[in-house]
Amino acid sequence: MPVAVESAIPYPTPRKVDLAHHLSTEARIRQPNPIKSVWKAAQVRPGIINMGNGDPHHTLYPISSMNFIVPSLEGDHPVEAWRTGTSKTLVLSSHKDAPSTLSLRTAFAYGAGAGLPAVREALADLGARIHAPPNHTVCLSLGNADALTKCFRLFGDPDDSFLCEEFTFSAMTNAALALGIRWVPVRVDGGGLLPEDLERVMRCWDEKKQGKRPHVLYTVPCSQNPTGSTISLERRRRIYEVAHIYDIIIIEDDPYYFLQYDLQINQNTLKEHGYTRAMSEVLPRSFLSMDIDGRVVRLDSFSKVLAPGIRLGWITSSPFFADKLDMLTDSSTQHPHGLGQAYLAELLGPTGWGADGLMKWVHSLAREYERRRDLFVSVFDAKVAPTGCASAEVPQSGMFVWIQVHLETHPRFVVRTPDSGSDDEGDVLGAVMAAPGVLGEVARGGPITNTEQLMSELLRKLVESGVIMIPASTFAIVDRSGSTLSPIGDRANYLRATFVGTDETIRDGLTIFAQALEEFFNLK
Amino acid sequence: MPVAVESAIPYPTPRKVDLAHHLSTEARIRQPNPIKSVWKAAQVRPGIINMGNGDPHHTLYPISSMNFIVPSLEGDHPVEAWRTGTSKTLVLSSHKDAPSTLSLRTAFAYGAGAGLPAVREALADLGARIHAPPNHTVCLSLGNADALTKCFRLFGDPDDSFLCEEFTFSAMTNAALALGIRWVPVRVDGGGLLPEDLERVMRCWDEKKQGKRPHVLYTVPCSQNPTGSTISLERRRRIYEVAHIYDIIIIEDDPYYFLQYDLQINQNTLKEHGYTRAMSEVLPRSFLSMDIDGRVVRLDSFSKVLAPGIRLGWITSSPFFADKLDMLTDSSTQHPHGLGQAYLAELLGPTGWGADGLMKWVHSLAREYERRRDLFVSVFDAKVAPTGCASAEVPQSGMFVWIQVHLETHPRFVVRTPDSGSDDEGDVLGAVMAAPGVLGEVARGGPITNTEQLMSELLRKLVESGVIMIPASTFAIVDRSGSTLSPIGDRANYLRATFVGTDETIRDGLTIFAQALEEFFNLK
Repeated sequence: MPVAVESAIPYPTPRKVDLAHHLSTEARIRQPNPIKSVWKAAQVRPGIINMGNGDPHHTLYPISSMNFIVPSLEGDHPVEAWRTGTSKTLVLSSHKDAPSTLSLRTAFAYGAGAGLPAVREALADLGARIHAPPNHTVCLSLGNADALTKCFRLFGDPDDSFLCEEFTFSAMTNAALALGIRWVPVRVDGGGLLPEDLERVMRCWDEKKQGKRPHVLYTVPCSQNPTGSTISLERRRRIYEVAHIYDIIIIEDDPYYFLQYDLQINQNTLKEHGYTRAMSEVLPRSFLSMDIDGRVVRLDSFSKVLAPGIRLGWITSSPFFADKLDMLTDSSTQHPHGLGQAYLAELLGPTGWGADGLMKWVHSLAREYERRRDLFVSVFDAKVAPTGCASAEVPQSGMFVWIQVHLETHPRFVVRTPDSGSDDEGDVLGAVMAAPGVLGEVARGGPITNTEQLMSELLRKLVESGVIMIPASTFAIVDRSGSTLSPIGDRANYLRATFVGTDETIRDGLTIFAQALEEFFNLK
Repeated sequence: MPVAVESAIPYPTPRKVDLAHHLSTEARIRQPNPIKSVWKAAQVRPGIINMGNGDPHHTLYPISSMNFIVPSLEGDHPVEAWRTGTSKTLVLSSHKDAPSTLSLRTAFAYGAGAGLPAVREALADLGARIHAPPNHTVCLSLGNADALTKCFRLFGDPDDSFLCEEFTFSAMTNAALALGIRWVPVRVDGGGLLPEDLERVMRCWDEKKQGKRPHVLYTVPCSQNPTGSTISLERRRRIYEVAHIYDIIIIEDDPYYFLQYDLQINQNTLKEHGYTRAMSEVLPRSFLSMDIDGRVVRLDSFSKVLAPGIRLGWITSSPFFADKLDMLTDSSTQHPHGLGQAYLAELLGPTGWGADGLMKWVHSLAREYERRRDLFVSVFDAKVAPTGCASAEVPQSGMFVWIQVHLETHPRFVVRTPDSGSDDEGDVLGAVMAAPGVLGEVARGGPITNTEQLMSELLRKLVESGVIMIPASTFAIVDRSGSTLSPIGDRANYLRATFVGTDETIRDGLTIFAQALEEFFNLK
């Protein structure tokens, strides 16, 4: 990894920590491709004639050039210009038989699992300037779903316990369940993951009752999915320290990292050093940037800052884990597609935007999303807040607003204190208590309110009214330890909404939402 | 899957066979993405406003068009014209805001794990016309490595035994070892996998000694990698019948399928019905085409017929397995990249080659590879065969020649009969017998010749001389049952060579090879 770059943050000093014991059985016993060892032996002789491999010759690839029409980055706010159709365009070209940043002879051939140097080095350089990680390697991924599920296979054995935010991106955490991994929830608030709860879970862990101690934390530190929260620097430091003390690997899944709002970049830095340096001064400190142990695996994605269909991202980790991930890639997806690498190589290369241009784009993109967030908040304040039925915190980053529904004011809301008897309530409550909630919680830790039932009714009401948000129950991780006094079902009075749609979607959607809430709460 | 297409082969009648018991634990317990169930509930109301998902809006994708410059298919032999620079070109265009076969608004968005309809349906249609499978579904893959390793996860549990050709593509079979799957070799000859040996392995299987019976066969039926053999129709029928009797899933990995040589397509069919129909009449019958049970999972790839860097292929399987593969894709790689799907959609669409054009291309490509194969054979006959040290069968398909080295004529070749004593041989043999071969065979089933040692020396000699082929030992699957009298190390006197390089590579490589053989055999 190139280190001779100008960085805003001084490199921390790595600690020597052996983390090999975190590998899964699968990762431990995985063997390298045996054909590669023959190749290695052959590489001692330059110019050797290859009659070994079945690689189609580039003269037979049915493509000679690709062009990509992209926005030029002229002007101060290129995303605004592009979106409104006033942007100039730039033609990026990749060629097979003419000079390109990445030749199509290479892009369309079999390649390295970790990605081709043109792209990998540009991203490693960008990462070094922003995060200044102590000793890390960059590999391409096929986006964060690919990267994250590869991490599950890298670290997870059946019956392992992994930690995550108590509301989390269940589409991905469910993927780990199929490997026999169990999720252990850590409490969150509006500021994200609570370090003291992480510490509590680890301190109180009873291996006899609960099995092997959790050794991996999966976290989305910026615009946490679904709560939209961003962890403060102070909390991040404490979380990293808990991870160090209890020997936890941190999977830092950060697709929304570049979409930070209310940031003021220093105009002098911008003029003198460009966007990368100016952005690095104001972007949040990542776990990666603090990772003196090599216990952070950071996942970045192009899905939110370029487009999801590109299916490319990058993983930054210790060289040891990078090597193991590379072996998994060779044994599964193989190298990332050449078409996307060609696009990125030209985009990030000397005739394209360059990495600094990418930072200009994401800075402009964040301003656009900030505008949408502000629109969302103003419509919310005008339409939804006056009903008194719901409120929302203003997210600092990302795409999501975590809307709290004030069910406690609903006419049919019921609550039972854990100490009261079970037979002296009315019919409604009896029905609520008779069965576990949709989240499957039972007994101590079972629902003590009818939150789940009311949220389910509300969701039906929203669909009937013509707007869809995702209910908190979809993201809830149930505490199976039996030790909680506060079941998550009772805290599932939230909806995940997004402000990334059009202005019309935001206005119409929230208007419908407000009306539906009023009807649901019998205010109309 | 569209069935109302004109097919050269009548559809066989499906049998009702429940194959769910073949699924791995992982595949059985995998849960669908919970957010999808919310969406499903919402889909009952058309025009609903989506405030749920974090999908970037297409106005923010920093790309408006892509162009691909590809060969036009004019003339009788488009590959020859393209390769020699005399071909006309065709410009394929994908647009975000203008009509395209596949809009970039769709291609760059989040998409379906099984691929977008434009591409999927074109391939399903092509498959129906060529294989006429009884009841199957097509999903895109990221190439056959992705597809195959997903099949390992779909069917394989730790301690499962899978069957494969005794020399096989170890880069992939090794991937299964990491999952705890054991490989059981089936004997091959110049005509590929031997049905009688498959039947023997299954009939003689002792679950008490050998564990759970093998329930999956991994086979490369055309240009088997590495032996280059193609299984005859008669053998394929017998293999399928064994698979039916012993309840075996067949993974038909067929990347070289379209590269068949010495085929004569019917010119009248070509004129009247086009290339797809004409090719379907002469291409080998696939296992898929016989699959009345739904036990075949067929893997096709664009790597050999377009280019490896495209990283796209397609999987044809029963709808039941397709659904399970789709869930695995949602839980790992997610949908295939939009760039490659855009390229394929335009290539296979009405303004591109169309599927019939693709068949014209592959027909022409096969003629080009046939020319290279013939060149290889003629140089081999002129240079290598006269040494008497090696011989090769002429492959019917694919990219590989399996060169037999006649070690039995080498001055230092030694052989011990299994019945003779162990102490009455000379020093050389003593050394050979003292340790297991590189393949790790021991005891009964241990090396009884010094084949492995001599092949290792020959490989070193080849590298020093300046040419590299891949030794058979790299591909050998050792029989761990202890029942074989003929250890594979003794049959590892082969090299995998390819004829897909340039004419110069073939001429120079084989000339060096012949000289090196003569020196190694002390003939010079």
